[in-house]
Amino acid sequence: MKNSYSIGVDLGGTNLRVAAYSEGFSFLESIVLPTQLSAGRDQVVRDMCEAIEALSIRGYCGRHLTGIAVGSPGPLELPSGILRNPPNLPGWDGFNLKAAITSALGRELVLQSDANLAAFAEQQLGAGKRYGVDDLCVLTLGTGVGNGLILNGAVWDGSNGMAGEAGHIIISDEDGAPCGCGGHGCLEQYASATAVMRMARERLKDAAPSSAREVGLLARAGNPQAASIFDTVGHALAVALTGLINTLNLPLYLLGGGLCEAWDLFSPSMFRELETRSYVYRLTKPDVLEPEHLQARKTYILRAELGPTAGLLGACVVGLQQSAPILPSPSINDLFVHQ
Amino acid sequence: MKNSYSIGVDLGGTNLRVAAYSEGFSFLESIVLPTQLSAGRDQVVRDMCEAIEALSIRGYCGRHLTGIAVGSPGPLELPSGILRNPPNLPGWDGFNLKAAITSALGRELVLQSDANLAAFAEQQLGAGKRYGVDDLCVLTLGTGVGNGLILNGAVWDGSNGMAGEAGHIIISDEDGAPCGCGGHGCLEQYASATAVMRMARERLKDAAPSSAREVGLLARAGNPQAASIFDTVGHALAVALTGLINTLNLPLYLLGGGLCEAWDLFSPSMFRELETRSYVYRLTKPDVLEPEHLQARKTYILRAELGPTAGLLGACVVGLQQSAPILPSPSINDLFVHQ
Repeated sequence: MKNSYSIGVDLGGTNLRVAAYSEGFSFLESIVLPTQLSAGRDQVVRDMCEAIEALSIRGYCGRHLTGIAVGSPGPLELPSGILRNPPNLPGWDGFNLKAAITSALGRELVLQSDANLAAFAEQQLGAGKRYGVDDLCVLTLGTGVGNGLILNGAVWDGSNGMAGEAGHIIISDEDGAPCGCGGHGCLEQYASATAVMRMARERLKDAAPSSAREVGLLARAGNPQAASIFDTVGHALAVALTGLINTLNLPLYLLGGGLCEAWDLFSPSMFRELETRSYVYRLTKPDVLEPEHLQARKTYILRAELGPTAGLLGACVVGLQQSAPILPSPSINDLFVHQ
Repeated sequence: MKNSYSIGVDLGGTNLRVAAYSEGFSFLESIVLPTQLSAGRDQVVRDMCEAIEALSIRGYCGRHLTGIAVGSPGPLELPSGILRNPPNLPGWDGFNLKAAITSALGRELVLQSDANLAAFAEQQLGAGKRYGVDDLCVLTLGTGVGNGLILNGAVWDGSNGMAGEAGHIIISDEDGAPCGCGGHGCLEQYASATAVMRMARERLKDAAPSSAREVGLLARAGNPQAASIFDTVGHALAVALTGLINTLNLPLYLLGGGLCEAWDLFSPSMFRELETRSYVYRLTKPDVLEPEHLQARKTYILRAELGPTAGLLGACVVGLQQSAPILPSPSINDLFVHQ
């Protein structure tokens, strides 16, 4: 829609990011605030709504606000908008985030999990756009392993918003490492920065690296124990991707997140193992792993393109795709009347 | 469409089933023949096409033939219709089944994997219809583990027809049993009738049962080793379902196939393990596991309803959903002219 803009929000455990983009996805403005978790969830919602309202009264040369979308850490039950014991928002279990924002804002909005919005952004603006792909799966290897699934160009969030938890595919069955989800042996326990640090404590007792990046430096310097940690990462990703590829047969799987700085360290064992374990991958393996154009009907595993603001960008795209322009809410109307 | 009918085919490794159903899914006629694999694939295609032509000239009181659909064992590359080393059609690797049938028949048709068509039938005519569910996943526990995925009421066959191979989700990583797919530790190696027999040879050396059903009888008679085999089946299903539920968050997962006769033996360990391992299942577990009506936004794991002809029924439904009536092909036209 011409002369329109949207507002997107990324509610992170550390920062709260709010941005406005115009039709055609031109950047208009952003606001970044610390997420004041210690001040309580009501304060965080107030901060978010004030930032949204600040951008919603700008108008940006007579543009209509078409939509507002908010990305939240999960697990998030949809369409209700109730958080279910979210590890990054401690104390918010059972909180109806959607109702709280809607009530404070006096407007409708779209709430989604941040990982789903990040995957949507990758499809709409990143690798999916570049390669013309409507179906893709994103695994974000950060503190945990985030996941979003885009099917037929739309977020697949499942029957109650809880799809996209591939970080909790089981990799190691019998004696797998315990996971924050209550299970054990989940992908997240082998392919996250946290997992790399746990394995470093187990395997590199003397070196005591202080970050996953330092473990990577040790591996590149020739430390075989450090290298073995990234072999484990690649192996775990291959086991999870085998299940995803054999079940979904998508053209594109993207790996993002900070741990992808170690792509050169973990991807050789990942691709080696995938060829052995997934016969669908074997049958659909492309001639060139990282080509300029994707061959049709092949399976690609590439690095995600958008980086840590993918979720915020996805929220702004979702906002722009809302069909009807949002009328100014009564409170904002009053502001205009009295000015 | 009124006054219409379709022809569906199930190409099995043992039998070739061809059936005609009218609009509203009333049964008209069926032909069952042995699949003469030893006579070569051209003969099998000729037998199939003769049976299709026999039903296509019937007319059934002036009805129009809307469509023909054929279900084949996989792996089947789509839309090309080329078989990729199908274990149940030895010697057919690289054979373009779709081109062969189209050429012999002189008509267009839909080719799909039999497991996808069986899942589609479950959604259109079986448990999906009964419960009003558009999204479901079927695992068929037979000689192997078949799989079909229905999303938004349509077969999800992936970017080249190879989706629905959840039988090759990896369950046991390190020392998993070798699988016909070339990998090891796949679900099929722990939750098929073949797997039950392998475990019986390993664990029940004296009893020497001759079928999975006999292993079930031993378990019901109190043999603890036999019972442990079904615990393993349930455990493996739980590990695979954890990945599927956490990634896809569907409302309904159906288990079918002959091994489901042992549902009472393997489902307790399956449900127990699922609650421990899948937090999405834990959050969406229904109050009643097998209710008359499904609660919204819960995850159900139930027995499939349609039995071994599900694939044939699915092919007939697909044929009925073809939009344009198929005009008689020239060869059939000639038959009418000269009569």
